[in-house]
Amino acid sequence: MDVVEFRPAPEQYAWTFGGVPPVARVTPGSLLKVWTEDAFAGRIRSTGDLPTRSLQMPDVNPQTGPFHVEGAEPGDTLALHFVSIEPARDWAASTTIPFFGGLTGTDRTATLQEPLPERTWIYHLDRAKGTVAFEASNGLVIELPIDPMHGTVGVAPPAREVRSSLVPDTFGGNMDTPEMRAGVTCYLGVNVPGALFSIGDGHYRQGEGEACGTAVEGAMNTTLLVELIKGRGPAWPRIESDDEIMVVGSARPLEDAWRASQVEMVGWLAELLGIDRLDAYQLLTQVARCPLANVCDTNYSAVTKVAKALLPPVRAFDGMHSYLREQAKGTM
Amino acid sequence: MDVVEFRPAPEQYAWTFGGVPPVARVTPGSLLKVWTEDAFAGRIRSTGDLPTRSLQMPDVNPQTGPFHVEGAEPGDTLALHFVSIEPARDWAASTTIPFFGGLTGTDRTATLQEPLPERTWIYHLDRAKGTVAFEASNGLVIELPIDPMHGTVGVAPPAREVRSSLVPDTFGGNMDTPEMRAGVTCYLGVNVPGALFSIGDGHYRQGEGEACGTAVEGAMNTTLLVELIKGRGPAWPRIESDDEIMVVGSARPLEDAWRASQVEMVGWLAELLGIDRLDAYQLLTQVARCPLANVCDTNYSAVTKVAKALLPPVRAFDGMHSYLREQAKGTM
Amino acid sequence: MDVVEFRPAPEQYAWTFGGVPPVARVTPGSLLKVWTEDAFAGRIRSTGDLPTRSLQMPDVNPQTGPFHVEGAEPGDTLALHFVSIEPARDWAASTTIPFFGGLTGTDRTATLQEPLPERTWIYHLDRAKGTVAFEASNGLVIELPIDPMHGTVGVAPPAREVRSSLVPDTFGGNMDTPEMRAGVTCYLGVNVPGALFSIGDGHYRQGEGEACGTAVEGAMNTTLLVELIKGRGPAWPRIESDDEIMVVGSARPLEDAWRASQVEMVGWLAELLGIDRLDAYQLLTQVARCPLANVCDTNYSAVTKVAKALLPPVRAFDGMHSYLREQAKGTM
Amino acid sequence: MDVVEFRPAPEQYAWTFGGVPPVARVTPGSLLKVWTEDAFAGRIRSTGDLPTRSLQMPDVNPQTGPFHVEGAEPGDTLALHFVSIEPARDWAASTTIPFFGGLTGTDRTATLQEPLPERTWIYHLDRAKGTVAFEASNGLVIELPIDPMHGTVGVAPPAREVRSSLVPDTFGGNMDTPEMRAGVTCYLGVNVPGALFSIGDGHYRQGEGEACGTAVEGAMNTTLLVELIKGRGPAWPRIESDDEIMVVGSARPLEDAWRASQVEMVGWLAELLGIDRLDAYQLLTQVARCPLANVCDTNYSAVTKVAKALLPPVRAFDGMHSYLREQAKGTM
Repeated sequence: MDVVEFRPAPEQYAWTFGGVPPVARVTPGSLLKVWTEDAFAGRIRSTGDLPTRSLQMPDVNPQTGPFHVEGAEPGDTLALHFVSIEPARDWAASTTIPFFGGLTGTDRTATLQEPLPERTWIYHLDRAKGTVAFEASNGLVIELPIDPMHGTVGVAPPAREVRSSLVPDTFGGNMDTPEMRAGVTCYLGVNVPGALFSIGDGHYRQGEGEACGTAVEGAMNTTLLVELIKGRGPAWPRIESDDEIMVVGSARPLEDAWRASQVEMVGWLAELLGIDRLDAYQLLTQVARCPLANVCDTNYSAVTKVAKALLPPVRAFDGMHSYLREQAKGTM
Repeated sequence: MDVVEFRPAPEQYAWTFGGVPPVARVTPGSLLKVWTEDAFAGRIRSTGDLPTRSLQMPDVNPQTGPFHVEGAEPGDTLALHFVSIEPARDWAASTTIPFFGGLTGTDRTATLQEPLPERTWIYHLDRAKGTVAFEASNGLVIELPIDPMHGTVGVAPPAREVRSSLVPDTFGGNMDTPEMRAGVTCYLGVNVPGALFSIGDGHYRQGEGEACGTAVEGAMNTTLLVELIKGRGPAWPRIESDDEIMVVGSARPLEDAWRASQVEMVGWLAELLGIDRLDAYQLLTQVARCPLANVCDTNYSAVTKVAKALLPPVRAFDGMHSYLREQAKGTM
Repeated sequence: MDVVEFRPAPEQYAWTFGGVPPVARVTPGSLLKVWTEDAFAGRIRSTGDLPTRSLQMPDVNPQTGPFHVEGAEPGDTLALHFVSIEPARDWAASTTIPFFGGLTGTDRTATLQEPLPERTWIYHLDRAKGTVAFEASNGLVIELPIDPMHGTVGVAPPAREVRSSLVPDTFGGNMDTPEMRAGVTCYLGVNVPGALFSIGDGHYRQGEGEACGTAVEGAMNTTLLVELIKGRGPAWPRIESDDEIMVVGSARPLEDAWRASQVEMVGWLAELLGIDRLDAYQLLTQVARCPLANVCDTNYSAVTKVAKALLPPVRAFDGMHSYLREQAKGTM
Repeated sequence: MDVVEFRPAPEQYAWTFGGVPPVARVTPGSLLKVWTEDAFAGRIRSTGDLPTRSLQMPDVNPQTGPFHVEGAEPGDTLALHFVSIEPARDWAASTTIPFFGGLTGTDRTATLQEPLPERTWIYHLDRAKGTVAFEASNGLVIELPIDPMHGTVGVAPPAREVRSSLVPDTFGGNMDTPEMRAGVTCYLGVNVPGALFSIGDGHYRQGEGEACGTAVEGAMNTTLLVELIKGRGPAWPRIESDDEIMVVGSARPLEDAWRASQVEMVGWLAELLGIDRLDAYQLLTQVARCPLANVCDTNYSAVTKVAKALLPPVRAFDGMHSYLREQAKGTM
């Protein structure tokens, strides 16, 4: 098994999906060990660091990558299996940012009201307990279990586009779903030769919806297996865990993000079970779990999940997830 | 403990929230044992019964109620604790209905396309196994565990309005969330003297989003405890289980349903924890669970949940849920 | 021609569409002369009258009516021709209302920001010039031509519902379109025996969208002709002027209001021109005018208009508008 | 006055805003005479040419440009004055495209219904009459006055992005508003050195909303004056005609497109009139005209307009439009 290690210097960060040359080439089957900087590009380090002073817009969500996958062609399916996602620092940060977030007017949901105040929270990590500590202004401390994940996982977009690393869409990107944790396989449709995927935006934990716009943002050490499936590129990002199959749709308004994820899942269920789409629609209606991912980004993201335990045995992508799960065991 | 039993005759069904006289008066602290007809008013009984032929619109979602709660005044909080929700028949039904549902054009999301075909599925209940059986057109059968719930739980609306039992809004109503299962307490703000609450639309199980517009629709035998909290009426329906506190927002577009549930939860967390709203916003961002309820009704509904295990000990509504949980034990 | 005059006493105001008995019965062909109170129920009379102090929610948008139209049955079409709409006072008022309006967070588009300040503007009417005067805080005065219209024109809703007079929907209601001016005919589908229509919410002028939520709100003296067309009830309110045919759709999100108005217009054009719906869709694409009505109410409203000059001669509803135009001449 | 003429060969078309090198450099004050291919890249030429067979996706909306404007820096304002926009052919085309358009499910507003049929309409231009002829399937012909405009006018986007020429956003792009006709000045905020603007997507006429997704699409001969204003770059595209000032907002849902255009106009009015934003909000509420632009593209676009006749004399951008209007006279 090829092992590729990569820790970007700041000048090597990618700030977009597409539009930048690969930092490395990897062959399908490789193990990739990377470090990712936090969404703030490491500029928010204390409660005195406020976004409007400390951030250098639009330099947020720095990506580690892109990686060129040998042999990947448009229409193919990139499979990324997250072997481990581990906090690379003993602290993480979150902030409110003026006119950004889900419970404030923004540049699009434009209102005439004053912005919410800026505030920064620093979360200290207790590795032994596996917790990060939320501290309120009045001193109340609440320890929360970590649940590390990546907010951004994406390939280069189609149609010659280059998108900011703040954007989630068909190419993945800034989906901000807590489902993107260690142990899952993410399937992305390939749009350009080499796929050119990157990851970043590690969250030590995140609630569904990511209301204020920033999770518990922290640097990560992440290990992933890279595989390629010829053809079969899905229209929207799919995720498979040991227990569930999932689709992530991203759009506005939020119902369209959900619709996209549902229609894709209807097709997937119909294929896996050999039933017609109307039957798959009916079945999905009774078995779907639909947790929100983000309601704060340029597109909102919604997840449709189905528990494997509710279905007859199915082998998504010919059992790729199980195969990668096995491969991963050998790496640890 | 007063015990009130009520099984409506068909001519006693209510088809609206508000606008009809109570079928009974109950005192706070009473135990209520009711039967509810299914959402189709019992008119869909075989796969040959198709909605456009069998339903008598707008006579769907028949309500059992309304019940007048003695002493309830506008501004108060009605607490309904679901002791048990049990299938009253050995079968249930689901259908696709032309131009109704989440993955089709509708009268509002109006398109020029042909409607999806009508189809009816009958689910047979296996009480021993606790399953209902989905059967596809090609004969594939999938047994799904039941998870009984009520799609509609609501009080009379404010501002002199009368709303169809298909509508979810601040008064509750047709929220269609799987969280409304036995063991939870639902808190509703009272808008009119007596509250005038009703329930209906039993689902033997339902996926989140209720994509096709109809769940596994079945008649129910339901037992609930009725309590009244003076004042403190919440802006949006709240639900408490042993493990979680929840708010249900209902609006269009879907992000507004989510926003409403989130802002209500921010205020609730701030109150329960004694922190300011900006801190509550931050905390919620990291701990929220946001499963969708419905994306098919006249308003869409989204749930915001917080696990009690993540919080310091809190006593919502002065411990009403625990109290009712105890009371319920005595009834079984 | 029967002439019915009606000026409600305050205790006769209707605050809903549906749910109240008629104030009078009128026969088709009648001339109706009414007075309508302003949207604030006359409670905002000086710049010192601020909404949170002066208004008695939900008592806004008082309706004059409802009127029972003899012979009107569900499925019929009510035709209301506005002969004249004239300011009944020499002043009118507008305000900002906390958490209400198009450019602020609201109870649905819920945010955590502070509300915009409350402010009241009084517009003085110059009858000779036909203007109302906007006066800014810094003393700048801008005289604006009046263009009197009714924000609310509606019938009782279907499905046993009673809706606040703040709501626009299929039954008309609070559409808040400047197109509802003297000289037009409004066609509404009848939902209940007698139609039970009412009007109110006079605006001395209003911009499209009604951004801040309140127009130049004033009492009106209005004369209208009432006619009945058996059957043919449209799904959405239609308006006909000498120059244009229009449909008003009301929904959220705003694209659904537009879609509803467009699909209804596609059907209308197909019928009037004898072409298929795909051709009508194409034609509408090239000829539609789509001014917004309101983006602040419980549903947003969008208008689709087609200029008659662009079409071959058409006779909507068998020439009802021309007929009423002629009838109106005899009344003045 | 420098005069630059440019007619792209097919291999010179740009398919994006940003991401391609300029085809020419122009100095502020230059007159630019260009030819633009139609949105279909000239591939739809008869009613037998159907989109799925004839188009080469994503090669639609070919742009003429981009042009590098000497001295333009981020934060500046590009002023493009359309001197003339004239049909370059004697015919134009429109189509329905599967799962594209305003009155059909799409990849985002995803439904399970069958697509609408594909159909192509060819419009013949009568230059003497100034009309194009719509022809229905049943032979009905309706002559419609031409009203030539450009669907796309845009600069390179900010934040390193490259966007498809199908996208409207803050950088302009595929706004598809009929207001972009000869005689207007379009103001765009500059995001990259040289601005890198392009135009394309000529419409011989278009209704507001562009319901089916394609207008009367035709090649154009267009003359425009290019000017540069240092600084003052607007957040959203602005348009000025002799009679009106306008802002175009683009977003989803449609209310956000409208909100963006309104908030930008509130700020513009406050600046032009020297009043506070709350007064500007009030004034705009009473004077705005809000015609839709498109409800079919990747973002929807809405226009907010104010008639100059309703305002005291104002000089937007220090009278740039009047100046360019005068300059234009000298060129004809």
